[in-house]
Amino acid sequence: MSREVAILGFHDGSAGQIETWFEQVTGYRIACFVHEAETFEVDAAAENKKRVSQRTEFPRGDTFKGRPFILSPDWIGEIERRGIRKVLPLTPNNRERLKQIELCRARGIELISAIHPSVTLLADARIGPGVWINAGGIIGYKAEIASGVLLNTGVRIDHHNVLEECCQADPGVVTAGFVALRKCCQVHTGAVVINRIEIGEDAIIGAGAVVIRNIPPRCTAVGVPARVIRG
Amino acid sequence: MSREVAILGFHDGSAGQIETWFEQVTGYRIACFVHEAETFEVDAAAENKKRVSQRTEFPRGDTFKGRPFILSPDWIGEIERRGIRKVLPLTPNNRERLKQIELCRARGIELISAIHPSVTLLADARIGPGVWINAGGIIGYKAEIASGVLLNTGVRIDHHNVLEECCQADPGVVTAGFVALRKCCQVHTGAVVINRIEIGEDAIIGAGAVVIRNIPPRCTAVGVPARVIRG
Amino acid sequence: MSREVAILGFHDGSAGQIETWFEQVTGYRIACFVHEAETFEVDAAAENKKRVSQRTEFPRGDTFKGRPFILSPDWIGEIERRGIRKVLPLTPNNRERLKQIELCRARGIELISAIHPSVTLLADARIGPGVWINAGGIIGYKAEIASGVLLNTGVRIDHHNVLEECCQADPGVVTAGFVALRKCCQVHTGAVVINRIEIGEDAIIGAGAVVIRNIPPRCTAVGVPARVIRG
Repeated sequence: MSREVAILGFHDGSAGQIETWFEQVTGYRIACFVHEAETFEVDAAAENKKRVSQRTEFPRGDTFKGRPFILSPDWIGEIERRGIRKVLPLTPNNRERLKQIELCRARGIELISAIHPSVTLLADARIGPGVWINAGGIIGYKAEIASGVLLNTGVRIDHHNVLEECCQADPGVVTAGFVALRKCCQVHTGAVVINRIEIGEDAIIGAGAVVIRNIPPRCTAVGVPARVIRG
Repeated sequence: MSREVAILGFHDGSAGQIETWFEQVTGYRIACFVHEAETFEVDAAAENKKRVSQRTEFPRGDTFKGRPFILSPDWIGEIERRGIRKVLPLTPNNRERLKQIELCRARGIELISAIHPSVTLLADARIGPGVWINAGGIIGYKAEIASGVLLNTGVRIDHHNVLEECCQADPGVVTAGFVALRKCCQVHTGAVVINRIEIGEDAIIGAGAVVIRNIPPRCTAVGVPARVIRG
Repeated sequence: MSREVAILGFHDGSAGQIETWFEQVTGYRIACFVHEAETFEVDAAAENKKRVSQRTEFPRGDTFKGRPFILSPDWIGEIERRGIRKVLPLTPNNRERLKQIELCRARGIELISAIHPSVTLLADARIGPGVWINAGGIIGYKAEIASGVLLNTGVRIDHHNVLEECCQADPGVVTAGFVALRKCCQVHTGAVVINRIEIGEDAIIGAGAVVIRNIPPRCTAVGVPARVIRG
C-alpha cells in the first residue's frame, strides 16, 4: 500500500509547517501540495512586504517546498493519475474543505490525520480521519473530532466535546466539557466556551469571546459574554 | 500497606476519566467509587439525550465502570468495613468535598492525589495530598496546592500561588504570580487572574473574567475587568 | 571556554526559579546574580508579609540562593574582573534590560538563553541569544525571538511572529500568526492578539485584553476588544 499523501492547501502556517514534521511523525510521504483553482499567481516579495515576517514561502510554478504543486480544479483526477490514494485536508476555508472531503469519500480516497507529537490525547477520544491538531493541543476524554477539523496551536478541547466535520479552532481556544462545535463553525483565537454550549453550523466566534449561551447556525458572536452581532 | 483507593465522586469528566489512567500512573488500585447520598437514580439514556456526547457513563445499581459503587450517607463506614484506608476526593461541590476531607482526617483515612503525567510541576511546588490536576496543567515555582484542590485541563497556576483547601479552577484558567485562591472558591473556564490578587473564600469567578482587584469572600465576579455582581 | 554565567536580576519568580533548572538543562554554571544599583536593602520578613506566599527569597548581603550577589552600577566591570564572559538577562524592566544587553554587546559579553525543557519549539524558529522561555511555552514555526525577550509560563506564540528585543509576554498570552511585538513592549497576563497585528514599541497591553487592531508605540490598551486608554 502506497504511503504517498497529497496535502490540500499551501499556507505556510498550516500546510507549510506540517511539511517539517509530518513525514517523520506519521511515516507517510508528502507526494505533493494541492490547490483547487484554475490559476495561481503570487508575488512572494510583495506578499512578504505586507507581513512582519519575511520568511513566508509560496508555491512557485509547479513547486512548493521542493515538492510538486498541483494547481487544478480537477485536482482529484490529477492525484489519481499519479496513483495517490491518500489526502490530508488543510484547505483553510471550512466549506471548501468539506466539499473536498466529500469528493474524497465519493472517490474512495483515504483521509489522513496530522497530529503534532506534543499533543495530549486523553483516553477514549475519537479522532478523524483527516484531522489536523497542531502543537500543544489537549483533547479531552471521550472527545469526538470529526474529519476535516483543524485545531490550531495550544487548543484545549475538553471531555465529551463533539467537534463536527470541518469546524476549526484557532490558537489558544478553550472549551469546557460537553461542548458541540457544529459543522464548519469557526472559533477564533483565544475564545472560551463554557460547558454544554453548542456553536451552530457555520457560526463564527470572535477572538477572545466568552461563549455562555448557545450560538445559532450562521451567526457571528463576539465579546464577553459573547453576543450575536450578525446572522 | 494496602494500595486500595476509594474515589469520591462519579462524574464522567472527572472521576470517570481518571479511571483510565490513575492506576497506571500512581500504582494504586481503584477499590470503588463513592457517592454520599441515600439514593441515586439516573436514566442514563435520558441524560445522554440532554448532552452533545452520547457516551457519558453513570453508575448503575452498585457498579460504576465495572467497579463497586458505594451509595451511602455513611460512606466512610462502608469503606472502612472493606478495609480501605485511602481516598481520592473528587466530589464536585467544594464545600461537600471539604467536609469529606475533614471526615477523612478525623478517621485517619489517607488522602491520595491524581496528577496527570502531562502536568508540569516546577521546583519547590507543594502539592496536596488529595489534589487532582488534569492534563496539561502547569504548576509554578513554590506554588502551594492544598488538599481537595481540583485543577482542570490545561490550567496555568504560576509561581508563589497559594491555593487553599477545596478551591477549584476550570479548564484553561491562568493565574500570574503571588495569587491566592482562598478556601472553596471557584474560578470558571478561561478566567485570568493578575499577580498578587486574592480570590476570597467561596467566591465565584465567571468564565473568561479578568480579575485585576481582590474579590471578597462569597462574592461572584464576572467580566473584563471582573466586577462583583453578587455578594 | 568558561561555562560561568552571570544572571541579571534576582526576582524569585524569574531569576529565582531559573536557579532550580538552568544548570542542569544548559550545562552552564551560575556564577552570580547581579543587580545594577548602588544600594539594595530589603526586609525579607516584611516583604513576605505583603505576599500570599511566605516563601519568597531575597538577596541578603552579598548572597542570593547561596551564590554571590553583585550589587553595583558597574556590574559589568565586576563580572569581567571575575572572568565571567556570559550573561543571562532577566532584569524585569524592558528598557533597563535592553541597555544592559547593549552594554554586553559593546563589551563582547555573550548572551545566554534559558528555555525550560517543557517548551515546544516548532521548526525554523529563531531564538535569541539571551532569551527566557518559561515552562509550557509554545513557539511557532518560523517565529523570530530576539535577544532579551522574556516569555512567561505557558505562552503560545504562533507561526511567523516577530518578537523584537526586550519585549515581554506574561503568563498565558496567546498570539496568532504573523504578529509583531515591537521592541520593549509588554503584553500582560492572558492577553490575546489576533493574526497580523503589530504591538508598537514600548506599548503596554492589559491583562486579558483582546487585540484586534494595531497598537501604536508607547500606548496602553486594555479590554475586549482592546482600546487605547493612554498614549
